[in-house]
Amino acid sequence: MLPPDSQIQFDSEGRLKHFLTINGLPRETLINILDMAESFINFGQREIKKVPLLRGKTLVNLFFEPSTRTRTTFEIAGKRLSADVINLSAARMSTSKGETILDTVRTLEAMHTDLFVVRDSASGAPHLIASHLPSHVKVINAGDGRHAHPTQAMLDMFTIRQVKGQFENLKVAIIGDILHSRVARSQIHALKILNVAEIRIIGPRTLIPTEIESMGVTTTGDMRAGLEDIDVVMMLRIQRERMDGQLIPSEQEYFNRYGLTEEKLSYAKNDAIVLHPGPINRGLEISSSVADGSRSLILNQVTNGIAVRMSIMATLMGGNESKK
Amino acid sequence: MLPPDSQIQFDSEGRLKHFLTINGLPRETLINILDMAESFINFGQREIKKVPLLRGKTLVNLFFEPSTRTRTTFEIAGKRLSADVINLSAARMSTSKGETILDTVRTLEAMHTDLFVVRDSASGAPHLIASHLPSHVKVINAGDGRHAHPTQAMLDMFTIRQVKGQFENLKVAIIGDILHSRVARSQIHALKILNVAEIRIIGPRTLIPTEIESMGVTTTGDMRAGLEDIDVVMMLRIQRERMDGQLIPSEQEYFNRYGLTEEKLSYAKNDAIVLHPGPINRGLEISSSVADGSRSLILNQVTNGIAVRMSIMATLMGGNESKK
Amino acid sequence: MLPPDSQIQFDSEGRLKHFLTINGLPRETLINILDMAESFINFGQREIKKVPLLRGKTLVNLFFEPSTRTRTTFEIAGKRLSADVINLSAARMSTSKGETILDTVRTLEAMHTDLFVVRDSASGAPHLIASHLPSHVKVINAGDGRHAHPTQAMLDMFTIRQVKGQFENLKVAIIGDILHSRVARSQIHALKILNVAEIRIIGPRTLIPTEIESMGVTTTGDMRAGLEDIDVVMMLRIQRERMDGQLIPSEQEYFNRYGLTEEKLSYAKNDAIVLHPGPINRGLEISSSVADGSRSLILNQVTNGIAVRMSIMATLMGGNESKK
Repeated sequence: MLPPDSQIQFDSEGRLKHFLTINGLPRETLINILDMAESFINFGQREIKKVPLLRGKTLVNLFFEPSTRTRTTFEIAGKRLSADVINLSAARMSTSKGETILDTVRTLEAMHTDLFVVRDSASGAPHLIASHLPSHVKVINAGDGRHAHPTQAMLDMFTIRQVKGQFENLKVAIIGDILHSRVARSQIHALKILNVAEIRIIGPRTLIPTEIESMGVTTTGDMRAGLEDIDVVMMLRIQRERMDGQLIPSEQEYFNRYGLTEEKLSYAKNDAIVLHPGPINRGLEISSSVADGSRSLILNQVTNGIAVRMSIMATLMGGNESKK
Repeated sequence: MLPPDSQIQFDSEGRLKHFLTINGLPRETLINILDMAESFINFGQREIKKVPLLRGKTLVNLFFEPSTRTRTTFEIAGKRLSADVINLSAARMSTSKGETILDTVRTLEAMHTDLFVVRDSASGAPHLIASHLPSHVKVINAGDGRHAHPTQAMLDMFTIRQVKGQFENLKVAIIGDILHSRVARSQIHALKILNVAEIRIIGPRTLIPTEIESMGVTTTGDMRAGLEDIDVVMMLRIQRERMDGQLIPSEQEYFNRYGLTEEKLSYAKNDAIVLHPGPINRGLEISSSVADGSRSLILNQVTNGIAVRMSIMATLMGGNESKK
Repeated sequence: MLPPDSQIQFDSEGRLKHFLTINGLPRETLINILDMAESFINFGQREIKKVPLLRGKTLVNLFFEPSTRTRTTFEIAGKRLSADVINLSAARMSTSKGETILDTVRTLEAMHTDLFVVRDSASGAPHLIASHLPSHVKVINAGDGRHAHPTQAMLDMFTIRQVKGQFENLKVAIIGDILHSRVARSQIHALKILNVAEIRIIGPRTLIPTEIESMGVTTTGDMRAGLEDIDVVMMLRIQRERMDGQLIPSEQEYFNRYGLTEEKLSYAKNDAIVLHPGPINRGLEISSSVADGSRSLILNQVTNGIAVRMSIMATLMGGNESKK
């Protein structure tokens, strides 16, 4: 894992130029992104869903790890900002990874592309790329290894604020496989910066890294205790390929203990909301009844994801269609 | 196979909102689509081939079954209408198919996409999707299992009308593997609705389902008898993977009996026309001499396919650039 | 290898309509393309990188041989000219190749596409396609077998002229695997037409075809002698899959003898420039120190590649945004 060097994310005049990690970002930066996203949020329902903010700009979706879903949200966000979008589902070509990935990126940069959206199985890859590009070329991290997934965390924050109106009084639970989750790390950073009242991590001991408490969270293996008095339930996706009996005994047992059912959700506050980054595993980490129920904001998250990604793109590219 | 529930295709005010099957559609609907397609037909040869009818709309090509050719026609049609086109060649992810496909579609819908073009190996998938979407989101069936391929049938009808001027006096033969053909089912529905004089199905007995005569067609295994006095010869594509000796003895024997040659074509009327949905298997279901000959309209079908798909998209999205 | 029939590249009024090979093109045609490319060269750095020259036109990237890099340059070039771009990474479907490829192309042409960019592992495929299309449809060769890669050679010429200002006094070395290189063939044709003073081919004897000297070049196996007094060093990419011990003893030995290092580069003129079509194999045909050094124009080539391809597309499509 890279050191939390967030300085690279700002230019000499203090403007955000990359979006690689939430760690170290000022509260104001997060709030500005959420505010600008609001100006895009009803946008998806307008007759003409395009604004010319990125017209003539070239956005490259550089996905070294496959993800149809996330790639599609960035493609739609870019096209709604009128950018030209190039999709590259590149296979990593050599074992001397750093070298090859940089040659690829420098080549693409030489085509006068403006914005890279990067996903890679290696932690730090977007950071490495950003540090080797000229200052007018921007990078957005679309998920790197176990390190960070900052746009996902931002859309989660947007969704929470949309319903709860503020962050300061909220008690939040993050449930599942924290150990392998880049989403959880970015969520914790964002929730801390936005000053929520409490963050609890819930999951099997085998899936909670020991050092996590140093981030200012509490941990528990017990759903009833963990969910008590909670306002926001943030579920993580379980990767089925990790269901090999080493870390998790069986799907059924995991669901019995940690799967979010109506019954377990009743331990939380009456108006608690449920988030999940998707795609969901029904009957594994969440029951269909909860996923499709009135407390679930899973599809709102998807809708908000477009607006938040438009906002981050427009922020980096110098757009300032803020509400203020 | 789903029941022929065509009601889902119309909104409460009787406007077409999905295009899933031709079965049950009023004659007027088909004629309107053909008429609007005519306004697009010379369009492909204009200097600027774009109209802004779908500007700012997002079209998702959701192909769970690979098809470069058909996907490309929808992509071109969408772009000529100025839509943003997202291509998703999704692999089906689970055995609980209905659930997963609906989660995928709901997620895409939450991105405020406007129109889905769906191809799936399961009959009824586009119908299933359409029945779970909010009313402002439209679905076009680009081929589902053995059930239907309605846009193919519509471009066939357009091509026939373009040359023959009408349907009422025509005798039509459909030749080949009816058993596995979604194209044939949609063609028969369209031809019946448009009131052709006669429909004959020709092919090996093993490839003609017994219940087909209930659709109002006659069947024969004999090419000479079947082609006599025919105006329109509609060939079907033989899937080579079915050439396993069970249903068809051998490629050579199939060609000898049912492959359309100049000689066999001479059994039909002198001005009979030949259609084929493509891609053609030369020397299997059709000879090169016929495929490339003056009676063949195969490439006209491709050209017309863009115009007809533009017409269907514009109809569903509320465009009304009709000629009338 | 096809006969150098360049007549097919011109229409009856002497205008360029295809770009298949540089062999046989008049000097004026090359100069015009380079001149128009100059009008596009600063273009990539403008705020809005689009011109409407190809608005409403449909460009099909038809790549029968995979190449993310080259395909991307054509996609970007097309989009900056406002064309609709369709990417088809088609697999060749049958052994009766000519037939299948022509059916595919005729089908695409029937969709009223305007411009094909074709890459194929078979020499002559773009030529074959061009000869079967109606005259308003254009073809650009993006690399065919060992035959030609004319857009690569044109961007190399552009890069040379950009730095050296002229061609007539230049001594040029082309180094590497000439035997398998379509790039080298197109480079030699272009350099001869543009009248450079001298062309030397350097490489292992096993990789220099004996007939190459008939093209008006000299050959040598010795880097020191070959590089003496050279102005332009054009490296070729070594295909690692040819490193089987038959043609090349080992990667290490190849690098020792023919890999371009600072030391070997010192045999050339002090202001000699280094070109490479990319992607580079660091430590095989070129050292990192040279590739990333001040004499290397490798990334300039990439930048220029977009402008040159825009120029070629605009030329074929009748654009005349020449500087003159």
